[in-house]
Amino acid sequence: MERRLAACAQVVAPIASTYWWEGEVQRSDEWLLFMKTTSDRFDDLAAHVRGLHSYEVPEIVAVPLVAGTADYLEWIKRETNSGPGE
Amino acid sequence: MERRLAACAQVVAPIASTYWWEGEVQRSDEWLLFMKTTSDRFDDLAAHVRGLHSYEVPEIVAVPLVAGTADYLEWIKRETNSGPGE
Amino acid sequence: MERRLAACAQVVAPIASTYWWEGEVQRSDEWLLFMKTTSDRFDDLAAHVRGLHSYEVPEIVAVPLVAGTADYLEWIKRETNSGPGE
Repeated sequence: MERRLAACAQVVAPIASTYWWEGEVQRSDEWLLFMKTTSDRFDDLAAHVRGLHSYEVPEIVAVPLVAGTADYLEWIKRETNSGPGE
Repeated sequence: MERRLAACAQVVAPIASTYWWEGEVQRSDEWLLFMKTTSDRFDDLAAHVRGLHSYEVPEIVAVPLVAGTADYLEWIKRETNSGPGE
Repeated sequence: MERRLAACAQVVAPIASTYWWEGEVQRSDEWLLFMKTTSDRFDDLAAHVRGLHSYEVPEIVAVPLVAGTADYLEWIKRETNSGPGE
């Protein structure tokens, strides 16, 4: 947040995750993190999350916002454009 | 639901939300609400949710359904088209 | 998972669901399941989930991943392409 890579983040936790890893089905408790940012900021945000994540191949994906209230979409742009702490 | 603005709504709560607001990083417990509707109905649904929400700029956004079982997609259309209570 | 229809699945539960069914607003506790797969695999995955689901018209929908870390997106393809148990 401090680096303005996302305007907000919501944590849903714990979630029960089942996945293929190294040829076996694994099970872990995980945290699901929804972050809202702009497409310009995604790569920087992804790199930042990867640097903090404990997995070798963490799930960092983006789904598109195809509609939204104008003031909220403006807010995302505004809060991910200012310099850190501004 | 009564006004047929959405066919269904699922609540995931509480979620931990962190967000920029008035120049500071704020933290709140929030409810995450997934609603299924048609693109025609989104603006009316968004206006209705905004009217009920406690935030000045609530997060009301839409992600696209690009595939789905035919009967479910039909169900969404049917349940958001009938008159109230029909 | 064993049939490689999805690379992973995350369960968020319970969620409170409200929906129109047979002319009335119904309420149930449900499980929200996020699964990651390829567009090629969606129909098979949907048919498999439907076969296991207790609802007559279960919610089985897809939202698009429009971006993601390269290794994660590769992982989804790899884990949904191999034969069962490979």
